[in-house]
Parts: sequence; structure tokens; C-alpha cells
Amino acid sequence: MPVVVVAVLPVKPESADSAREILTKAVAAVHDEPGCELYALHETDGKFIFVEQWADGDALKAHSSTPTMAAMFSDIGPHLDGAPEIIMATPVPAGDPAKGRLVR
Amino acid sequence: MPVVVVAVLPVKPESADSAREILTKAVAAVHDEPGCELYALHETDGKFIFVEQWADGDALKAHSSTPTMAAMFSDIGPHLDGAPEIIMATPVPAGDPAKGRLVR
Repeated sequence: MPVVVVAVLPVKPESADSAREILTKAVAAVHDEPGCELYALHETDGKFIFVEQWADGDALKAHSSTPTMAAMFSDIGPHLDGAPEIIMATPVPAGDPAKGRLVR
Repeated sequence: MPVVVVAVLPVKPESADSAREILTKAVAAVHDEPGCELYALHETDGKFIFVEQWADGDALKAHSSTPTMAAMFSDIGPHLDGAPEIIMATPVPAGDPAKGRLVR
């Protein structure tokens, strides 16, 4: 069963550019991790949002302890404006499969 | 520019089945709306999460005032366990385009 993750990182107003650089730097490396099906970054006023899909819980667990993640959280730490909110969930398929699932 | 929406709906513990039925019922109709590129439902303990992508801000605005949405929010209201959290954001492309964007 795939695992979907939504991670919301609030950043300090003056940190948007630094945070964007730190987070985008990690993305390509994460895409190469086993079981990574989706790892997409988004930005809005004061927040960065990752939407992720992992092949299964084991792949997500392995991801969470990679050197890439350790470096990313170390680098982003001083720029955070509060605790990240991380939600793990399972897909509820409905409607048109082309629009109702993150990964087709 | 596409608009990505993450909507987190907290539901009462006893309402999971009713909420799942109400939310999945809306999905197929939303998929047929103009500019809907992704509208995917997910579930975790006590929360339902929509991850959405709309072609542009006008499509999202039109979506927010459809009869489908009015009915969905009316029906889900009694089952909510707090206010929905709705985040609108823009994609930050990075890495492998096949894994770094919600809609390829």
C-alpha cells in the first residue's frame, strides 16, 4: 500500500530564498531513493509544502533516515518559523483514476 | 500558472465512514469541472486530505462556488472535528520532472 505524505514547513519571512535553495537541492537526490514515486515541492506565502508518495511504509522509513534528509533538516532548521506539520495518509481512490490518484 | 491546494479536514472519530462516503461522492463530479487537473482524496486517523491541482486561479475560484462544493460542505459540516485547513500554493519544479510535479 503506498504512503502519501504532506509536509508543511513554515519559514521565516526573510528566509524564503534560502529555504527554497535548501529544499530544491534535496529534491533530486530524494527522487533517486528506492520507492520514491512522487516528491513535489510547492510554495506559498511563508510556507513550503512537500507532497510525497512512497511505495510502502518501509521505503518511507528508509527515506526518513537518509543523509540527504539529515542534511536538509540541519540546513533548514535556522529558517523554520515553527514546527513542520507532517501528515501520513493512504489514498482513497474515487472518480476518474487519471485525476483521483497522485501517481497514475 | 497552476494552483495546488492541500485541504485537511479533521473529522470526529465516529464519523470516518460517513465522511468517507460524503467526500468520495463529490470526487467524480469535481473531476469533470473545467480546469481540474488533480483532485485526490486521502485518509489517515481522524483526517481526510485532498490534494488538488487546478489549471489556474480562475478554475479554482469557479470550483469553490459549485453546487457540488456547497452540498459537500453542508453534508460534511456535522462530521467535522475542527476547522478545515486549506493551503493554496504554486509548484516549485525541481529534480526529475516525472517525480517532482503533481501533474506530468
